[in-house]
Amino acid sequence: MSQNYKITIQYEGTRYDGWQKQGNTDNTIQGKLEHILSRMAGVPVEVHGSGRTDAGVHAMGQTANFHLPDTWQGACSGEEKRTASIMEYVNRYLPEDIAITAIKPVPERFHSRYNAVKKTYLYRIETGQKRDVFARRVQYGLGKSLDTEAMERAAQLLCGTHDYRSFCGNRKMKKSTVRTVESITVRQEPGGSVISLSFVGDGFLQNMVRIMTGTLIEVGLGERSWQSVRQVLEAKDRQAAGATAPAEGLCLAEVQYQKE
Amino acid sequence: MSQNYKITIQYEGTRYDGWQKQGNTDNTIQGKLEHILSRMAGVPVEVHGSGRTDAGVHAMGQTANFHLPDTWQGACSGEEKRTASIMEYVNRYLPEDIAITAIKPVPERFHSRYNAVKKTYLYRIETGQKRDVFARRVQYGLGKSLDTEAMERAAQLLCGTHDYRSFCGNRKMKKSTVRTVESITVRQEPGGSVISLSFVGDGFLQNMVRIMTGTLIEVGLGERSWQSVRQVLEAKDRQAAGATAPAEGLCLAEVQYQKE
Repeated sequence: MSQNYKITIQYEGTRYDGWQKQGNTDNTIQGKLEHILSRMAGVPVEVHGSGRTDAGVHAMGQTANFHLPDTWQGACSGEEKRTASIMEYVNRYLPEDIAITAIKPVPERFHSRYNAVKKTYLYRIETGQKRDVFARRVQYGLGKSLDTEAMERAAQLLCGTHDYRSFCGNRKMKKSTVRTVESITVRQEPGGSVISLSFVGDGFLQNMVRIMTGTLIEVGLGERSWQSVRQVLEAKDRQAAGATAPAEGLCLAEVQYQKE
Repeated sequence: MSQNYKITIQYEGTRYDGWQKQGNTDNTIQGKLEHILSRMAGVPVEVHGSGRTDAGVHAMGQTANFHLPDTWQGACSGEEKRTASIMEYVNRYLPEDIAITAIKPVPERFHSRYNAVKKTYLYRIETGQKRDVFARRVQYGLGKSLDTEAMERAAQLLCGTHDYRSFCGNRKMKKSTVRTVESITVRQEPGGSVISLSFVGDGFLQNMVRIMTGTLIEVGLGERSWQSVRQVLEAKDRQAAGATAPAEGLCLAEVQYQKE
């Protein structure tokens, strides 16, 4: 028997090759977590993320789950002390740019990816000459002003339930590319020069948020009309969409589950 | 003749040896600015800061001023274009962790240090187990909880016009150590685990904010009573106060001038 745990993870992705572990040269968030948890438990522990994030992408609220054998009792008895001691142990050994911010025991069958019902991504663009020195690692330094009204109109057209094949970075994708995007919000942050795009949906294809952002930036720069994104959707062709916006501006803000 | 300019500067101090330039091995904010401005102007330019910040201390709103010879016309004519082109030039050559956020022409006699009437410093303490990954460079990771009520009481006793010799890091200080501290605010930031201390005063002695913070932390940890800070003030002896809190938690938030 084993106990299943759900964790919430924060990371500044700058130094990492993304979430998903990669063979021998492992410099990934998942790899770091599994290494520490396996050492703690004395047995190999597999960490299941809610989804991959690309190299350089950040997370405020990535979620994952893992099982620990009942034979591992940790430093303390009692579930509350046990979870606290897991979090303390892992955070002590994680580097400064990765942290577990929450942990809780969940039913055996809970899976952070299959049970996720909603995800929120945030993309931040600095339109001013220079990025804020304190936020520079989580902003894309575009350095040009954007027509946010046109971006908002285009964003509305991208919402709904559609085949998002044009916004899929994986050209060999065999599975369904239909997703539901609940909302895309364009917001000017206090101070004025940072534009943040917030994407809420049931799930996103590989690079989807970055390709949608790249396309919306082209609309904001006047390089394409806001109406044109309708044709981009209909084309079902990656070539029809804009460039993939840089990873550094993207942050996985939240993953939501039912009954939470 | 020359034109005097006032600039507002933001920096993440982590990588630097503080504000003030230091001979040959120069890795300071002032040094970086003077180097770039001198190259731009074609003559040596001296940058006068509102005050020094220690190695590792950050700034949201440091201020400084410098004079440019009238012979330097920049790329454009007209004062507005001239200031914009100075800011653009300097920001282009400054590293990512230093930025000019504002510039304006000021009267010949304006001096950023002598004319400053009020300064605000912010000190951020993470009381939780692990620092926020995105704010870790601007927080002191204490990792212990603090009695903020006791800290508030002690903070009140430290306000007013006093001889702050006990809180002066320069033991050979010959000038007056009397300063006026207008307010010290203890605030729990949203989320709960970060305590921020805000210090407003007409000026601060060397290390004064960090020594006051270190003393208030000792109060918050129960290592000394809140009433005891009265004796610390009266002692006029650095030994009476607490430890100097680490530089990484400190940020010069704002420097104010008359008629602004």
